[in-house]
Amino acid sequence: MPAISIEQYVLVYNAFSFTFAIMAAATLFLWLSRSQVAPAYRTALVISGLVTAIAAYHYLRIFDSWGQAYEVRDGVIQVTGLAFNKAYRYVDWLLTVPLLLIELILVMRLSQSETISKATKLGIAAALMIILGYPGEIADDNTTRAIWGTLSTIPFLYIVWELFKGLGAAIERQPESVRGLIKSARLLTFASWGFYPIVYMIPYTNMGGGTVETAVEIGYTIADIIAKVGLGILIFIIAVRKTQIEYGDATTKDAVTH
Amino acid sequence: MPAISIEQYVLVYNAFSFTFAIMAAATLFLWLSRSQVAPAYRTALVISGLVTAIAAYHYLRIFDSWGQAYEVRDGVIQVTGLAFNKAYRYVDWLLTVPLLLIELILVMRLSQSETISKATKLGIAAALMIILGYPGEIADDNTTRAIWGTLSTIPFLYIVWELFKGLGAAIERQPESVRGLIKSARLLTFASWGFYPIVYMIPYTNMGGGTVETAVEIGYTIADIIAKVGLGILIFIIAVRKTQIEYGDATTKDAVTH
Repeated sequence: MPAISIEQYVLVYNAFSFTFAIMAAATLFLWLSRSQVAPAYRTALVISGLVTAIAAYHYLRIFDSWGQAYEVRDGVIQVTGLAFNKAYRYVDWLLTVPLLLIELILVMRLSQSETISKATKLGIAAALMIILGYPGEIADDNTTRAIWGTLSTIPFLYIVWELFKGLGAAIERQPESVRGLIKSARLLTFASWGFYPIVYMIPYTNMGGGTVETAVEIGYTIADIIAKVGLGILIFIIAVRKTQIEYGDATTKDAVTH
Repeated sequence: MPAISIEQYVLVYNAFSFTFAIMAAATLFLWLSRSQVAPAYRTALVISGLVTAIAAYHYLRIFDSWGQAYEVRDGVIQVTGLAFNKAYRYVDWLLTVPLLLIELILVMRLSQSETISKATKLGIAAALMIILGYPGEIADDNTTRAIWGTLSTIPFLYIVWELFKGLGAAIERQPESVRGLIKSARLLTFASWGFYPIVYMIPYTNMGGGTVETAVEIGYTIADIIAKVGLGILIFIIAVRKTQIEYGDATTKDAVTH
């Protein structure tokens, strides 16, 4: 681990704790809100909550690992020699990134066959994107990082193409009052995912080791909150609005009494 | 514990953490989805979630035990002298393997007497298969391993026979649109269970101690994910589809409000 200042250490430490709290809170919100939407949209909320639950678990682990890598005593910070496990993020993304795309597809309520085909294609591309990024993340030299980063961009571009081209027609078939929201969810996915490669490239700058470490961890953390909690809340709003359109307020009232 | 490389240690470490996360996520998904299927299929989802919940617990223990068996400091790995507890897997299987067969029987919704008789026979055979395999797993010499491994194969063959011969007629009575899915679930059970003996035989190869240890742990982990999470998701899809067939979409709406 690179030497870092106490301020940097504490900033990252608290960011991890904050992120655990927000992920766990989002999970509970999404699951407790299931009964407020029509049955057809409940799986979307279950999956949105799963994403934040999986992230909450990994932030707990990341928090512990970070705490073990450094020791602050009497105002002095020291590297303990224990490694900070960078793999937790990738293990998390391997599970959550395909699920994030599935959330988006589920809330659109396409036909069964279209749902399965889109979810499979996008899920595989997402997993591939994560797997190809990892060897670069743990590489010590920036050339290896660049090679794997570039390879990882290929499935990412395919996902972007699918989101904007492949899902475009399906979005036009959505009720008018949610079309804008679904486009926002798509844009949020695209923008937050586009932020990860920027963080990935931080080590190319000529900042010092401790600053790079801090900037990467804070950057990924912000991206995770937007991509997971932000999308989850949007999915909830879309599901509530579609429930009102499809079942009317009366049926909604019925659905929520249980 | 054999000496292993840091890369092997970290791979197994992260695989255990990943597996805990996926098992816990599957559990929550299966339990939260109960309300989406007809009451007759809810027990199948409860049991499927129990299997992954029990596995999540054991992977947490396995993860801790693995973390205690080695120590990585300043980029050097050392054996601590504490034993890695191989029994957790067998204790897990003793509980989960009979339950996996019961999941499959429950989602078929046979007559009450047939359900009890098949579940009892298959459950006992599954428990026997695990109990006979264990003395071989902890044996130091490959001859003892081979003897117990062979004994364990006898109940396994009986289970295969029951799945393909005994349940064959019952599967033909299933609604046409789920017959293929139930056959897939049976095939997944057979194929993933057939993978365990292959992993069991890894110590017979002439790979080094650390590589054997790593390959066995990763192999069992992959088999567990497919056998438990993979089957659980298939059971969920079968239950949803059978609910739609038997109750129609209207009743589904009703059934899911609870």
